[in-house]
Amino acid sequence: MTQTTTSSQSARDHTWAIPKTMRASVLLAKGQVEMQQRPVPSPEAGDVLIKISSVGICGSDTHYLREGRIGHYVVTEPLILGHEAAGRIVAVGEGVPASRIGQRVSIEPQRPSPNSAETRRGEYNLCPHMRFYGTPPIDGALCDYATIGAEFAHPVPDTMSDDAAALCEPLSVAIAAARKGGVTAGSHVVITGAGPIGIATIQVVAAFGATSIIVTDLDDQRRQLAADFGATTVLDPRENSLEDLGADVFIDASGAPAAITSGIGAVRPGGTVVLVGMGAETVELPVQTIQNRELVLTGVFRYAHTWPTAIELAASGRIDLDRMVTATYPLEETEAALNADRTPGTIKAVVRL
Amino acid sequence: MTQTTTSSQSARDHTWAIPKTMRASVLLAKGQVEMQQRPVPSPEAGDVLIKISSVGICGSDTHYLREGRIGHYVVTEPLILGHEAAGRIVAVGEGVPASRIGQRVSIEPQRPSPNSAETRRGEYNLCPHMRFYGTPPIDGALCDYATIGAEFAHPVPDTMSDDAAALCEPLSVAIAAARKGGVTAGSHVVITGAGPIGIATIQVVAAFGATSIIVTDLDDQRRQLAADFGATTVLDPRENSLEDLGADVFIDASGAPAAITSGIGAVRPGGTVVLVGMGAETVELPVQTIQNRELVLTGVFRYAHTWPTAIELAASGRIDLDRMVTATYPLEETEAALNADRTPGTIKAVVRL
Amino acid sequence: MTQTTTSSQSARDHTWAIPKTMRASVLLAKGQVEMQQRPVPSPEAGDVLIKISSVGICGSDTHYLREGRIGHYVVTEPLILGHEAAGRIVAVGEGVPASRIGQRVSIEPQRPSPNSAETRRGEYNLCPHMRFYGTPPIDGALCDYATIGAEFAHPVPDTMSDDAAALCEPLSVAIAAARKGGVTAGSHVVITGAGPIGIATIQVVAAFGATSIIVTDLDDQRRQLAADFGATTVLDPRENSLEDLGADVFIDASGAPAAITSGIGAVRPGGTVVLVGMGAETVELPVQTIQNRELVLTGVFRYAHTWPTAIELAASGRIDLDRMVTATYPLEETEAALNADRTPGTIKAVVRL
Amino acid sequence: MTQTTTSSQSARDHTWAIPKTMRASVLLAKGQVEMQQRPVPSPEAGDVLIKISSVGICGSDTHYLREGRIGHYVVTEPLILGHEAAGRIVAVGEGVPASRIGQRVSIEPQRPSPNSAETRRGEYNLCPHMRFYGTPPIDGALCDYATIGAEFAHPVPDTMSDDAAALCEPLSVAIAAARKGGVTAGSHVVITGAGPIGIATIQVVAAFGATSIIVTDLDDQRRQLAADFGATTVLDPRENSLEDLGADVFIDASGAPAAITSGIGAVRPGGTVVLVGMGAETVELPVQTIQNRELVLTGVFRYAHTWPTAIELAASGRIDLDRMVTATYPLEETEAALNADRTPGTIKAVVRL
Repeated sequence: MTQTTTSSQSARDHTWAIPKTMRASVLLAKGQVEMQQRPVPSPEAGDVLIKISSVGICGSDTHYLREGRIGHYVVTEPLILGHEAAGRIVAVGEGVPASRIGQRVSIEPQRPSPNSAETRRGEYNLCPHMRFYGTPPIDGALCDYATIGAEFAHPVPDTMSDDAAALCEPLSVAIAAARKGGVTAGSHVVITGAGPIGIATIQVVAAFGATSIIVTDLDDQRRQLAADFGATTVLDPRENSLEDLGADVFIDASGAPAAITSGIGAVRPGGTVVLVGMGAETVELPVQTIQNRELVLTGVFRYAHTWPTAIELAASGRIDLDRMVTATYPLEETEAALNADRTPGTIKAVVRL
Repeated sequence: MTQTTTSSQSARDHTWAIPKTMRASVLLAKGQVEMQQRPVPSPEAGDVLIKISSVGICGSDTHYLREGRIGHYVVTEPLILGHEAAGRIVAVGEGVPASRIGQRVSIEPQRPSPNSAETRRGEYNLCPHMRFYGTPPIDGALCDYATIGAEFAHPVPDTMSDDAAALCEPLSVAIAAARKGGVTAGSHVVITGAGPIGIATIQVVAAFGATSIIVTDLDDQRRQLAADFGATTVLDPRENSLEDLGADVFIDASGAPAAITSGIGAVRPGGTVVLVGMGAETVELPVQTIQNRELVLTGVFRYAHTWPTAIELAASGRIDLDRMVTATYPLEETEAALNADRTPGTIKAVVRL
Repeated sequence: MTQTTTSSQSARDHTWAIPKTMRASVLLAKGQVEMQQRPVPSPEAGDVLIKISSVGICGSDTHYLREGRIGHYVVTEPLILGHEAAGRIVAVGEGVPASRIGQRVSIEPQRPSPNSAETRRGEYNLCPHMRFYGTPPIDGALCDYATIGAEFAHPVPDTMSDDAAALCEPLSVAIAAARKGGVTAGSHVVITGAGPIGIATIQVVAAFGATSIIVTDLDDQRRQLAADFGATTVLDPRENSLEDLGADVFIDASGAPAAITSGIGAVRPGGTVVLVGMGAETVELPVQTIQNRELVLTGVFRYAHTWPTAIELAASGRIDLDRMVTATYPLEETEAALNADRTPGTIKAVVRL
Repeated sequence: MTQTTTSSQSARDHTWAIPKTMRASVLLAKGQVEMQQRPVPSPEAGDVLIKISSVGICGSDTHYLREGRIGHYVVTEPLILGHEAAGRIVAVGEGVPASRIGQRVSIEPQRPSPNSAETRRGEYNLCPHMRFYGTPPIDGALCDYATIGAEFAHPVPDTMSDDAAALCEPLSVAIAAARKGGVTAGSHVVITGAGPIGIATIQVVAAFGATSIIVTDLDDQRRQLAADFGATTVLDPRENSLEDLGADVFIDASGAPAAITSGIGAVRPGGTVVLVGMGAETVELPVQTIQNRELVLTGVFRYAHTWPTAIELAASGRIDLDRMVTATYPLEETEAALNADRTPGTIKAVVRL
């Protein structure tokens, strides 16, 4: 039986017993989740095998549960969800040094092709041949063991909790957004939406040095959370116009067309708009404002090169990921975890294995 | 009486007789243009007085004639149109060296405030206190004499025609677009719309080194012109989809929502979209495509720092502005010039004074 | 007699009595400082007149005292030194709103020409026609009153001390360096030299989100100060090589060739080197390392667009300027202040008026 | 026996007979080159096997011949030189589509590790695990057959000669330099050194839109060649100072300290310096000029992402590579080719197989 070790050194010296089968929480179809026994995967060349310890629930996981699809990604075969994950390396594939066994890691849940033009340019998140955890037909991490490329299993210090290691994933989305926005010391930032990504983004832009962080949300409780996590001003968008706030950067973490439009109006000439929230396929945008102010509008599709920064920001205490965890569940209660967003005050539910 | 000189040296030695009054073609209200006698302006401190030689007609001039307004800019007082202009410096204001008298110049028709945040950052085109030629209530250049800041009167070589010197203005719009798009050697560019800005943009992106220049226009004749001016491929958008062309940069020179949407689909992940054509205040955009491909979308509002490049590209023969002049008119026929766009095959009408 | 007010509102309502003459600490020649009575200057159009409250002493001030020159800037006429200054606006020139009277301000001590190519591009610090405080033949701020362009007198909140307002100047140098270096959240930075600019830079890169800040200095006490102000590691360069540290950014705040060479070796391929410390006119640099790693090496010449960021970082408590003040002097003891660097443990001496 | 085909289609349908052994021109040690029979390599997974047609001689090849080393790269085992190469794909390794057989290709002669931080960022040329053609201990292309990763074998159109396809390699160096320098339409560029890289750079910056290209070389004949290839001004550096020319970009293609120093003086405030020529390990640089003008100085180490641009610029006729070939040799005369630089007027010697 596998025993827990607290010291990384002894963890590395340890021989990890790996069972043949494992528990997996499987989405069979829209609305149907069940526990199954699955074979434990073997790490292929260049991969590591990770014993999963903690998995954060993302809005996209919940969306797959409720709708059975996101856009053109459709759940047609049983699928293991979960892409915010941490664990410990217990085995390595060919070409990966055995010294990695025992490392506690945060998982960057993507497998780009090394040969696509995008990957070769360094924009591996845009690789058209991407295989991404918990996105049909690729299984995710809501199970005992999972594999990933060795370079995508990022070691974390022992001072970082399993939950925090898992939440480096949503943190990475926020880091990608802050980078795209060019947020830097002294930036004035407007963020619409104070859900989990909004909360992560508040913390991230503060860590990037932003000195004004204005956050809007329709929900009182979320506005309060935003303030607790570092917003310098919180606004109810029904009562406050953002027009001509002169923000350097606007980050939408809501996906709501009204929020996007109002946020664009908040940006100074030459400023930046980053669309993070996912919503409709098309949105009516104030194109003349974009043109007349020469705004730069872009979006974030996952992330690249964010994990080392995420881990260092969290490990150094600049960002508090543990405080974002509002509920935890065992793997057997995955469905409850997926529905935790229905509980007011929820930021992030985590499944602990 | 003012005599024409061909040599710049003798031009500089010449004393320019400046009359007290001048001809001006004035837009009284929507649809009403008349010739008036106006006082010749005096150059204020830092300004130069220019004897106008050539004025290109822009679609916005025509729009003011026909509609009496553009967006919230409304012609409420008599207005001299014209902002694509060239001429010769005949007097200087305080602080400007007299040696500038006699210079042939291309006019950059804008007067930003030196103290706005935008101007101080170098983005003077975005200055909120801008006074711009031919934009209510600021008079333009369809008259014998006009003043401008000395730094905005850009000397041109004697080898450049008056018309070409005037057309450095639309050329500047195209240069601004190419810069925003990051067009460089080897770029693959899609341009929608082969009107005057489209044609200028084709030439400009070629001068920036683009090796693929795909141009769409609904009009046969314009597509032919596009090919003549350097498009490597011309397409009828009714018969060809641009989807997944993998372009590095898409520049819209049409303002048409359908063209914008199709052009966005043509851009590779990480590529750039520049909206130059002016159209509706809001446009329904394919936001998911922008997000999923992390496209960077921006607009061009006039230009800054473009004139030296415009003059050098035209003077070196890399760009042919004279060939874009399809009709010329005397000042008395300004209204005909403003309506020249109704003649098929028109690229650019020029008023010669 | 001018009385002190604590409330900005009453300060604005106050009529400020301005005397005809003022005290000035004047550098007559190398080594000779004397107090003189000088006429109080009048604000020209666009300027404000400031009653000086606090002036930080810079190494360049001390260098002028001891050497009578810096490079080709030679003190040939009596010169008022001091360019790190704060105070209160007591009068305004033509075109400046009277509402600015009474504002406490930090002075950005430069007067670029608005018409140079550099200023027009937004790089006004590089303007060849610059007039800069305390640089021959332009007088500085070690006197009761000084004028500056209204845009260069930056309001500070009442929560910020006069000393802190003055030290926004060296803070600006550090901000300029951090920007040039591209320092951002997660950056690994090496800084050589823990003098006043080094200490400011440590704080600034932390505010920009750097997670590793390695600082070297030959002096024990300075290394201790570096650690106190936020260095994550301090090293004695005689005992530690920096080679292959893999830093993203190296900022030299020493001007010492050995430090520059060792710091360059610390930078990862594709990283950045920013030379802030001033030293010899030429330095033997490891060019092959720069080439083989494609390092980007640049320097900082003063600053542009830094004051709003400096004030916000200091006002928000992210940077502690008051703690950098290790000694204060009255104006009559300017010479002692200029020589304060000879006292071990000195970071910054301030003259209070 | 392998027959020549002129049509790519038939080339693809052809079955290429591959012999067991091949000719190779081998550098045994400093000064010793001999022809050997070597086994034809087999393409590993992801690789292609190329029948070499043309190999350009680089100064570094010649340097290995004469000195037996370049810096810390020492020829200790027999080495096949040659890294400017073109040919035809005759076999493919596992995972590479057979449809690539028959393609004429230009070889990008580098094999970075896909997993290094540098490669993952897109800067694969800086990969510390690089294996590069003709650099000890990796064999190059002066032999009948060579392998390379499929992504590094870039198809060329049939209109491009074998020599031109080979010379996409030095062209890539020049493209990398132009990109690092930010050369764009209207740029004013100074280039020191009119050897092969200088000549390629002249053509490249013209293709990027530079309108002023000032070139210096000590040698009359080379200055004449520079003018022939597009320099707008050529100067003898012994007779002309470059100081304060106001160039936007300076590219050194000489490696000579005096040229580097004079070129730096030519650059305007805020401009860029790119060091391409290789010379001494350290060079005494005018650091105060770099600081006072905030110049950005960097170097070029080979190239990344340049081949598609190189091929398109050459194929479109914007750059003439064939005209750079001043002498051709059979493989048996490799030593003569390596010494062709001793013949005045030589730009580029090519070995044809």
